[in-house]
Amino acid sequence: MTSRTETEGTLAQALLAPRSVALVGASDDPAKTAGRPQQFLRAAGFAGRVYPINPNRGTVQGERAYASLAALPEVPEHVFVLTPTDTVLDAVRESARLGVKVVTILASGFSEAGAEGVAREAALRTACEGSATRVLGPSSLGVVNPRAGLVLTANAAFAEPELPRGRVFVASHSGSMIGALVSRGKARGVGFAGLVSVGSESDLCLGEVCAATLDDPGVEGYLLFLESLRHGEALRAFAREAARRGKPVIAYKLGRSAAAAEMAATHTGALAGEDDIADAFLKDLGIARVGVLEALLEAFPLARRIPLHGEGAPLRRVGVVTTTGGGAAMVVDQLGVRDVVVEAASPATLARFAAAGIAVSAGRVVDLTLAGTNYNVMKGALDIMLDAPEFDVVLAVVGSSARFQPQLAVKPIIDSAHHATPLAAMLVPDAPQALAALTAADVPCFRSPEACADAVAALLARRRPGTPAAAQVASAASARTLSEAQAYAILDELQVPHAPAVTMPLSGPAAAPPFDFPVVAKVCSAAIPHKTEVGGVVLGIQDQAGLDAALAALRRNLAERAPDTHCDEVLVQPMTRGLAEVLLGYRVDAEAGPIVMLAAGGIWAEVARDRSIRLAPVTVETAREMIAEVKALRTVAGLRGRQRGDLEALAQAVSALSRLAVRPDLRIAEAEVNPLMVLPEGDGVLAVDALVLRA
Amino acid sequence: MTSRTETEGTLAQALLAPRSVALVGASDDPAKTAGRPQQFLRAAGFAGRVYPINPNRGTVQGERAYASLAALPEVPEHVFVLTPTDTVLDAVRESARLGVKVVTILASGFSEAGAEGVAREAALRTACEGSATRVLGPSSLGVVNPRAGLVLTANAAFAEPELPRGRVFVASHSGSMIGALVSRGKARGVGFAGLVSVGSESDLCLGEVCAATLDDPGVEGYLLFLESLRHGEALRAFAREAARRGKPVIAYKLGRSAAAAEMAATHTGALAGEDDIADAFLKDLGIARVGVLEALLEAFPLARRIPLHGEGAPLRRVGVVTTTGGGAAMVVDQLGVRDVVVEAASPATLARFAAAGIAVSAGRVVDLTLAGTNYNVMKGALDIMLDAPEFDVVLAVVGSSARFQPQLAVKPIIDSAHHATPLAAMLVPDAPQALAALTAADVPCFRSPEACADAVAALLARRRPGTPAAAQVASAASARTLSEAQAYAILDELQVPHAPAVTMPLSGPAAAPPFDFPVVAKVCSAAIPHKTEVGGVVLGIQDQAGLDAALAALRRNLAERAPDTHCDEVLVQPMTRGLAEVLLGYRVDAEAGPIVMLAAGGIWAEVARDRSIRLAPVTVETAREMIAEVKALRTVAGLRGRQRGDLEALAQAVSALSRLAVRPDLRIAEAEVNPLMVLPEGDGVLAVDALVLRA
Repeated sequence: MTSRTETEGTLAQALLAPRSVALVGASDDPAKTAGRPQQFLRAAGFAGRVYPINPNRGTVQGERAYASLAALPEVPEHVFVLTPTDTVLDAVRESARLGVKVVTILASGFSEAGAEGVAREAALRTACEGSATRVLGPSSLGVVNPRAGLVLTANAAFAEPELPRGRVFVASHSGSMIGALVSRGKARGVGFAGLVSVGSESDLCLGEVCAATLDDPGVEGYLLFLESLRHGEALRAFAREAARRGKPVIAYKLGRSAAAAEMAATHTGALAGEDDIADAFLKDLGIARVGVLEALLEAFPLARRIPLHGEGAPLRRVGVVTTTGGGAAMVVDQLGVRDVVVEAASPATLARFAAAGIAVSAGRVVDLTLAGTNYNVMKGALDIMLDAPEFDVVLAVVGSSARFQPQLAVKPIIDSAHHATPLAAMLVPDAPQALAALTAADVPCFRSPEACADAVAALLARRRPGTPAAAQVASAASARTLSEAQAYAILDELQVPHAPAVTMPLSGPAAAPPFDFPVVAKVCSAAIPHKTEVGGVVLGIQDQAGLDAALAALRRNLAERAPDTHCDEVLVQPMTRGLAEVLLGYRVDAEAGPIVMLAAGGIWAEVARDRSIRLAPVTVETAREMIAEVKALRTVAGLRGRQRGDLEALAQAVSALSRLAVRPDLRIAEAEVNPLMVLPEGDGVLAVDALVLRA
Repeated sequence: MTSRTETEGTLAQALLAPRSVALVGASDDPAKTAGRPQQFLRAAGFAGRVYPINPNRGTVQGERAYASLAALPEVPEHVFVLTPTDTVLDAVRESARLGVKVVTILASGFSEAGAEGVAREAALRTACEGSATRVLGPSSLGVVNPRAGLVLTANAAFAEPELPRGRVFVASHSGSMIGALVSRGKARGVGFAGLVSVGSESDLCLGEVCAATLDDPGVEGYLLFLESLRHGEALRAFAREAARRGKPVIAYKLGRSAAAAEMAATHTGALAGEDDIADAFLKDLGIARVGVLEALLEAFPLARRIPLHGEGAPLRRVGVVTTTGGGAAMVVDQLGVRDVVVEAASPATLARFAAAGIAVSAGRVVDLTLAGTNYNVMKGALDIMLDAPEFDVVLAVVGSSARFQPQLAVKPIIDSAHHATPLAAMLVPDAPQALAALTAADVPCFRSPEACADAVAALLARRRPGTPAAAQVASAASARTLSEAQAYAILDELQVPHAPAVTMPLSGPAAAPPFDFPVVAKVCSAAIPHKTEVGGVVLGIQDQAGLDAALAALRRNLAERAPDTHCDEVLVQPMTRGLAEVLLGYRVDAEAGPIVMLAAGGIWAEVARDRSIRLAPVTVETAREMIAEVKALRTVAGLRGRQRGDLEALAQAVSALSRLAVRPDLRIAEAEVNPLMVLPEGDGVLAVDALVLRA
């Protein structure tokens, strides 16, 4: 096993700038899928050596063909296997034997294709074991690096003459989308520093591929097209490092709707997670998740200018200056539906406008009307807006002048773009020349209100990655349930408050509890995670005699409903009522890793997804943000004079539970406090039931 | 007052195809706002007579100028007033005196501009009273009819050479947006049968302008850019008639977010309503409300093919066939977030694929992969999908072939577009030629997954307009509250069930109620709409002595908290508990007209907007749809084995209350039942409080 010790630089080179490439199964017909890579490499002027492998022909597309990889005059750095599924394994074995650095596999029919496919993928892994060979795919449409003329792909879209070169690197779960992004990017004036179709990631995963390019100075940012968060750990590691280096990552992730999530699962064999977990994952790693396809292409220049926000300083204040009220209103509206509120100019800023002789209408946006088509008016207005302390981002919404006087319309925007506050333009008419001029000047610009608002909202929602979870946290596989009493011991360790609890033998007679009646009695056993299902809870016990009767009832219920379940103890607690009930949970998600969740309790949890999720651990400050996101908690936040709940204590508890992510010593894979009672302000919170799984 | 008796044909002609036009305040400088209309008319080859009016010049832009409207050799049919605000009134008075049919006013400074502006607008109305003159504006950028070369606008965007002609008519509250739509339409291959900037609608409103063109055979559909639903009655009348004639109406309405709604209000002086009311209004009138700007331009060809659905037969079933899994997944996802679920092909349809030798992957979409780039495969697949009974709409999602073999890629789609089931295409790459070919063949097509899904969802959500409300329904202006007992009499009349109730003198002693204890006692007076605020409710009264004590308590509370309020009676009801509480309301909305609303009751109504709204009246079937839209009601719809509520009785009650819209005899402006108790299945529903306003 030497492959994992290779430096990423070497991997990046073999992947994206190999000196030699072999095409296994190259076809003489350049129109055929297996004929395309050779044709594309030649058309793009790839400077490296290209070896077609085809045992049935002396030449392929007019070049000398070789019978096998072994017959080549050198070991190629990168092998692209274009043959059908059942012959792939032989080519991979041969590559591994020879010491090829990267093998890319086009064929499908592996992990996504039933038991036979899974066996085939296992064989693939075995074939590379102990070798230095890394595999991209199966189901990879290949690798493209316009900077090196490397068009090593079977994607027909790369018949495109003059691939647009640029600064962003694309990694995609979908092979066809790299082609769509190239044509759309070209039409939009956006180029690429590389595009990789990662396929089903049997070895090299999307996070690793991106990480391999982090040292490449030609790669200034990343666009990801994601079907799921599979191989989340590598994605996390890459995103943290990209954030550290200030290289923005923008992602379009399928699965916002249940139907698409299911489809992604069918499509790739991956199990897609819940979308709000994915959302939290991406935001917490500083990745801007866009929801509009065009925003994926347009967001990068703005992403470079909007810093990731740390705690306590979310950047949310957008200022808008415009020459067209209707056009600006569309952007304001689209921002609003994404919870980004456009701020009005402050009185001080309005005073500066007045002093500069710039007439503006008062209101949420600074509307210069037709006067804004004058260079000095727009330039003056932009400079005042960009200097104003109340704006984190300024948008210029430009009307018809963008089409009819494109150079004039964009000049003030280009000339004002150097301020510390980021400036972006949205063009209301179809205005290709203005768009091109702004793009050429590297000024963020958008051609639809939806892409503009989507990009701005996604970029503002990113958070600087916080404390990483411990490298080894317990996963739920083969975890076992603790008893409620054991679960409280874990909560004690974490300093999550719970209701007082004593245990006593189920066999009775009941001991006198050290707190007042009424009390609740619950069977207490690691073997009974769901107590109510076996009649294992008696509420509202009024006195000692009642407690004895309750124990008898619990024994009876267990004997009837769970006769074979071992249970020695009963747990007794005082009855507790709070102002609100919430569910507080921690778990190690298969894709996203450790997460903490705060959700509405009771019946609403079932009918409305009213919850907030973050990667664990979280600080108390982040926990406060989470509380603000759970609608049900507004009822105890002072609404209409209602009594306030102790939301500060709740924030402490959320943060405390989330610290399981940095306590690998406790080996907890999952912990759910349900309900956690929120008491009146100053009285704290109390867990009154808890379910904990230890690995 | 003869203007209202003019036929719409005459209005349409004067508005959109006048034989003569006067430009009041025409400027000699064609680059100036007041110089543009003359220049545009000439550039467009307008065939009618054009009269520049300018008292200071003998010629304007090389043409003879006139000193005044009175000095013209004829009375022009359409006058465009380009002069500043304070001179507008004179021009309008002169026009009215001469009998000009339409006067369009460019200037702003009327109803939106404070008290002075409001007075100015009143004077404007007075000036036209008794005349045949209709006013478009103020704040109108004008009227454009590419079919007649009428470019009667000051919008600089119409410097555009070769205005695209087409079949759709645009009416817009925003003047700048008509220019943006022209350039965007041109870039997208979409033309227009006319564009009108309606301005602030002091006289002619958007609904009237559109209605005037309903007989025009060159107008096959409508695109509306709306800031609000002001003049809702005219919009309603137009939309009903358009639906009757099968002319689709597609609207982009600002105000989805609170910020934009407020902005529209600032911008136009109109009071923008709540967005979910607007949403219900548009859907119930058969108007497709799109949320993506490009969908406004792209939806029309598909709108013509998707019928408005009546009751009981919502068209919701979308089938997707594709050559690219990733591209199709984007569309599926975007449809999903808009609550449109893509249906998988049925076993029968899959069998037809197999019989035709077309290999498809099983799953939510029919993925032909690369084979779908073959004409016969795609044509065969489309024909099978379009004949399949399980789909109401079929989408073809086309991959890279749309860019590289545009004619070949779109041919099967064009050749299959004649089926009864509507077919639309979404192109994953940038593919201008394929888009142009499809557009030329009048095949619905989309260039982004967002516009595609938005248009499909908006078109499927339209409903055939139902029974109109009575022409004269009571409005809430100067309405007065009824007492609770009087309100129950109204509910009795409508057959909305309520809890038994008796009234008795507040002075006591209490009579024996004709139902069992426990009971509730409430002060009963039209003067006390909010009983709890004056301590006017006593709950849980256990016996006759308790009832006497309750009356005493109520007298005491009233004496303390509302000493001057008249109240003779107390209303006594049995205590009622339901499985769920809802709020059922009817009101005559200022913009939308009569609406009925069903909402979650209790605390959730305050923190989550969980409600369903329709134009009143609604049938029981529509009421059932409304119930399905209120999330809180899922808790009594059989969720997880919970007891079911009597949702059928609830549907009856919703429909019954909504019939206030056709009962002008009752003169009810507003009725709110809160709470309405939903009892277990079979036991019905019961209003236990009601607030009714009579005009």
